[in-house]
Amino acid sequence: MNKTIAIQGAEGSNHHKVARDFYGNDIQLKECMSFDVLVDSLLDKTANLGVMAIENTIAGSIIPNYALIDNNNLHVVGEEYLNIHHHLMCLENQTIEDIKEVWSHPMALLQCKEFFKKHPHIKLVEDVDTAEVAKRISKENLKGIAAIAPKIAAEIFDLSIIEDEIQTIKDNSTRFVIVQTNEPAINEEVNKASLKFQLNHKRGSLAAILNVLSDCKMNLTKIQSLPVIEMPWKYSFFVDVTFEEYKEYEKAKAIIEIMAEEFKILGTYKNGRK
Amino acid sequence: MNKTIAIQGAEGSNHHKVARDFYGNDIQLKECMSFDVLVDSLLDKTANLGVMAIENTIAGSIIPNYALIDNNNLHVVGEEYLNIHHHLMCLENQTIEDIKEVWSHPMALLQCKEFFKKHPHIKLVEDVDTAEVAKRISKENLKGIAAIAPKIAAEIFDLSIIEDEIQTIKDNSTRFVIVQTNEPAINEEVNKASLKFQLNHKRGSLAAILNVLSDCKMNLTKIQSLPVIEMPWKYSFFVDVTFEEYKEYEKAKAIIEIMAEEFKILGTYKNGRK
Repeated sequence: MNKTIAIQGAEGSNHHKVARDFYGNDIQLKECMSFDVLVDSLLDKTANLGVMAIENTIAGSIIPNYALIDNNNLHVVGEEYLNIHHHLMCLENQTIEDIKEVWSHPMALLQCKEFFKKHPHIKLVEDVDTAEVAKRISKENLKGIAAIAPKIAAEIFDLSIIEDEIQTIKDNSTRFVIVQTNEPAINEEVNKASLKFQLNHKRGSLAAILNVLSDCKMNLTKIQSLPVIEMPWKYSFFVDVTFEEYKEYEKAKAIIEIMAEEFKILGTYKNGRK
Repeated sequence: MNKTIAIQGAEGSNHHKVARDFYGNDIQLKECMSFDVLVDSLLDKTANLGVMAIENTIAGSIIPNYALIDNNNLHVVGEEYLNIHHHLMCLENQTIEDIKEVWSHPMALLQCKEFFKKHPHIKLVEDVDTAEVAKRISKENLKGIAAIAPKIAAEIFDLSIIEDEIQTIKDNSTRFVIVQTNEPAINEEVNKASLKFQLNHKRGSLAAILNVLSDCKMNLTKIQSLPVIEMPWKYSFFVDVTFEEYKEYEKAKAIIEIMAEEFKILGTYKNGRK
């Protein structure tokens, strides 16, 4: 049976690209209009796996998605880093002068605001998704309408890209994670882990944990503190580490389990950085 | 001479509230339509101080603002934590049924989407700012139009709040900082510092720094790593510490200066947490 992969957004989105990069073309796609719906589809077993953006270079960590993974006890089983590009696409044989309206998600319209200032004849219309508009243009043969979407959408829906990279901020690398409800079997390729723990605001408590990680040859690739809501002076830490020896990782895990509160492995997986 | 305070957004915004909490009503306000414009007004000396949102509980750190402070060598001289509330306001003696259109910033409209789903007769119209619409409604006596803005706007522009707290996510605490171009004089009230440094991806390098902070009795209230763009395996760290003794802070500073690269004090100021 094919795997069912839940993605945020529609076919042709960046989330779809990540799903395809991981599991190929032979997958069932479940399009979810929010990250909450995505998580629900994992919990009610209508999907086996989910693709979720987790941080990007413009906005930093997507804190609500950390909370979704944490609160629903999902397991991170993979990651991918993707450079996000917004392309303007429409039916073939049209120029930018032929485009009367662009339909897209408010966030995409916002990110491409500067570009559209130079083309005031184009009306910006809010829509529920970016890639789904690309699909609609293709299926309903809509002339004069353009979508803002990644390259994969132009490819799937046979649209032509009339402007490349129309987003204002050019350097937007996004990290996506693959999540599932079941704890995965240990896998030889695993060389990265995402950990979460709580510490009291006691001097040196984080340093003590990082000393253990260092002694166990863990390399820190991300650290982020978050105040625990309604518990003054208590902090959650989200830490990612890479390692060479799984045994060393197990050792670090066993020690931190004793030292920190609410210790939890959000996932172990293969490092997605090239 | 009155101080000129640059704020992001308009009179009546949350940024204005912070300016007023710090410097009272007897200030010159400089309204800036972006954080870049705000920084420019500090650099060209048309404003003495700026108020800038820096992180919030929904989205985490506002990474581009960290970059603005860092790249322009601004000094953080104060901070305030504010709970963000979106209120729907209009001219007096109107009910929600009388409202035909809401004009607001796309981000505010997005954050209140669920509320407006329940009131489909209201047309959502994008505008450049939240509080500025409140001002316009008041000045031009616009009936049937509502703004989404904080309480301070209703107070200043004499509008009536017809719905409280219309944002979907209720718990949104935002941290604002006060920034200036000149290095401030040392002040007795100072008990918090924002530091930035770079480390190579060498095992234990961050633990070593945190050990120094701990030995010098610094309490960590925030830590965040950011990969340095185009320098693989090099990380920037933004760290906030609170302390009781300024002398201990100076000691920590002197040691980290030797241990880390690109060490920089983003500011020393009075802790804004109650």
